[in-house]
Amino acid sequence: MQSTHEFIAAHKDRFLAELLDLLRIPSVSADPAYAGDVRKAAEWVAANLRAAGADHVRLEETPGYPIVYGEKMVDPAAPTVLVYGHYDVQPADPLELWDNPPFEPVIKNEVIYARGACDDKGQVFMHLKAFEAMLASENLPCNVKFMIEGEEEVGSDNLGNFVAANKDLLKADVILISDTAIIANDIPSIDVGLRGLSYMEVEVQGPNRDLHSGVYGGAVANPITILCQMISSMHDEFNHITIPGFYDGVMEVSAADRASMAQTPFDLDAYQKDLGIDTVHGEKGYTTLERASIRPTLDVNGIWGGYTGEGAKTVLPSKAYAKISMRLVPNQSSAEITRLFTEHFKAIAPKGVKVKVMAHHGGEGYLMPTDSIAFKAASDAMATTFGKEPVPTRGGGSIPIVALFEKELGVKSILMGFGLDSDAIHSPNEHYGLFNFYKGIETIPHFFQNFAALSK
Amino acid sequence: MQSTHEFIAAHKDRFLAELLDLLRIPSVSADPAYAGDVRKAAEWVAANLRAAGADHVRLEETPGYPIVYGEKMVDPAAPTVLVYGHYDVQPADPLELWDNPPFEPVIKNEVIYARGACDDKGQVFMHLKAFEAMLASENLPCNVKFMIEGEEEVGSDNLGNFVAANKDLLKADVILISDTAIIANDIPSIDVGLRGLSYMEVEVQGPNRDLHSGVYGGAVANPITILCQMISSMHDEFNHITIPGFYDGVMEVSAADRASMAQTPFDLDAYQKDLGIDTVHGEKGYTTLERASIRPTLDVNGIWGGYTGEGAKTVLPSKAYAKISMRLVPNQSSAEITRLFTEHFKAIAPKGVKVKVMAHHGGEGYLMPTDSIAFKAASDAMATTFGKEPVPTRGGGSIPIVALFEKELGVKSILMGFGLDSDAIHSPNEHYGLFNFYKGIETIPHFFQNFAALSK
Repeated sequence: MQSTHEFIAAHKDRFLAELLDLLRIPSVSADPAYAGDVRKAAEWVAANLRAAGADHVRLEETPGYPIVYGEKMVDPAAPTVLVYGHYDVQPADPLELWDNPPFEPVIKNEVIYARGACDDKGQVFMHLKAFEAMLASENLPCNVKFMIEGEEEVGSDNLGNFVAANKDLLKADVILISDTAIIANDIPSIDVGLRGLSYMEVEVQGPNRDLHSGVYGGAVANPITILCQMISSMHDEFNHITIPGFYDGVMEVSAADRASMAQTPFDLDAYQKDLGIDTVHGEKGYTTLERASIRPTLDVNGIWGGYTGEGAKTVLPSKAYAKISMRLVPNQSSAEITRLFTEHFKAIAPKGVKVKVMAHHGGEGYLMPTDSIAFKAASDAMATTFGKEPVPTRGGGSIPIVALFEKELGVKSILMGFGLDSDAIHSPNEHYGLFNFYKGIETIPHFFQNFAALSK
Repeated sequence: MQSTHEFIAAHKDRFLAELLDLLRIPSVSADPAYAGDVRKAAEWVAANLRAAGADHVRLEETPGYPIVYGEKMVDPAAPTVLVYGHYDVQPADPLELWDNPPFEPVIKNEVIYARGACDDKGQVFMHLKAFEAMLASENLPCNVKFMIEGEEEVGSDNLGNFVAANKDLLKADVILISDTAIIANDIPSIDVGLRGLSYMEVEVQGPNRDLHSGVYGGAVANPITILCQMISSMHDEFNHITIPGFYDGVMEVSAADRASMAQTPFDLDAYQKDLGIDTVHGEKGYTTLERASIRPTLDVNGIWGGYTGEGAKTVLPSKAYAKISMRLVPNQSSAEITRLFTEHFKAIAPKGVKVKVMAHHGGEGYLMPTDSIAFKAASDAMATTFGKEPVPTRGGGSIPIVALFEKELGVKSILMGFGLDSDAIHSPNEHYGLFNFYKGIETIPHFFQNFAALSK
């Protein structure tokens, strides 16, 4: 019988072909126009999981998109690993910036280009294939449960209720997630921290209709100008966020931890060159790595209002809109920040305009202890396949569900991701390296071996 | 033979039916998608002018849309009136806010609803019908020339060259224009001042691609936030415009003129109620009427960037854009203001972003002396048909070509408009009252009579 390693080697081309099939399904959860495709992706994942040998595979329906569940219980005495991931993807726009259609994957120079290639189809699919390989080689040392959702990119609104209502079904010793990045292909790392999120949408209304800017300009509040002034006021000269109470919950990082963070390999010139910028920009008193991980932020993700077509229209618009999100650090409450933002935005609205504030979704930050056996199992697994100890890092992104897992299930999550920050997730030309895809499939079985051994 | 008045009365229904035909042509000059319709409108106007009895009617081709020219020379000794207007219209969006399709005119409560009903198809068409009536009743006391263009809403870029190249053809004693408003149907007024315009478009670029706001948020300049900060900085706490040198050319209005302006009938409560606002908003130290006429302004006409679709996308966008226009007062040079804006916008751009500034179009402000015979001819004509002396007012809008006419042809323009500020020009549900349409047709022949008499 083939070893797990041999099985992977023998089937790697098929694994890749299957992933490309999954990437061809435009499962954009944010846009209702793709509702049918999102469901199609769920059914595809369930079928693939069933074919890999999982039991009780099913779609758990929710008020939104279904959650794919499946499991393999090999031994009541063995530890149980709950694998979490998502089959939905970010919207692909702006489409014109893609070199190839986002849902027609192509492979160039050993890299897969497609929306979802890295986030998260490519990474969650590594687990399905590692599972298939362990099973086929009769080398699955842990019980395994899969929970793969379709609403991660829109806030996992329904997963929370599902988890709370299915604590027994989801009972596990650790949750394993691959939805993060390593520092570089020769510098493995494990995310031990995540930022939380509050995502808001605001509307500012001036006059009750669009007006002629010549007849009314200068005499009536322009909602775009006012919105710009309100947004502008949310950062001070040091790029501190000015919302009262915003920093109250922030867990300050010790000088020692900041010193060790400073040891993380980071090339500022290469970073700026990659982004085409002549300087970085952020909160005074913190490094780029710190600004993007241990500090909370406020970003405008979108803004629109007035005439945006070709040519010139001399309109003084009735309304202006913005989508504004805040990244939060551990101990900041998303609900509280959402409340503070809402109160502040209404408070700073000048007379002459009406404002509306709506919360899209949010989630809490997360910290993973590095002294757990789960972390050691992941660290040793990567050390084996990369030939180098992974660096513990804190990521700037958010996987809100991770904090919820701990709250509802009392189980920690291991963020063993294999992407790269340069994979352009959420951007045009998202991609994922074949090196990373196969390295993940190779590494996961080692985690299972290590976790089973360390659990004894 | 019918008198001019009798002819108008006998043909008013046909006049209206013809106007509705013209309003059905979506001649949106700002949007290339309507290019065919804009030309169709030009041909329609030429045909109508020919049918009314004008000679040498033709389309004068330009690099853009054609200018409709036609004339009737009745007597070399008689004064010549050059009638100017435009057959192009503003874009109709946002379409969803229209109660009826913008290019399917409907009449409700004696009011015509359609894009262009007032600006300027409805008003320029009054001249064609008044001309037809004077001719049919053998009562045309002046030579008349028509110059009706199709690029007024996009800056009249080609009319300037046409005028400069055809000074003999366009030789006239006065230019008559109906493209402005009266205070109310029972308070006639004549615009004796116009604001100039500089219309700019700006682009702010941060990173060279859209980024994940979790991975890069807080560490890289967000172009939307920066654009908001730049726009915000362009007004100070008193709503003065902060562009260095912006006010240098401003012709200050004398205390006496401001005092007489203050006599203009104006109901602030009704104004705020009509716009649905709880307070007005503008430059400190000036009244609403002053802010909208004798003071220069800066308005954001449109802004866009990042994700503006449904739901939430955690993107840190590469670029953000805005359309920004400034209304200028007499003595401010549009070219100079365009230069000052461009320099200032580049000067205030922080490190970490690149900016582009593009000028759409501009024009100079204008003042009409009230002691001219042309003004008296218009004033007396309105006094006759409204039974009340018109109030001289200064409008906030811009008809850049008026200043150019004076420069190139050495001829003053009379702005004898019949619209209302509440006609929602440039807005959804633009409309024009039948009262105003017919009052214009009635008044114009009186202007011709008065001007001929006063010219003797």
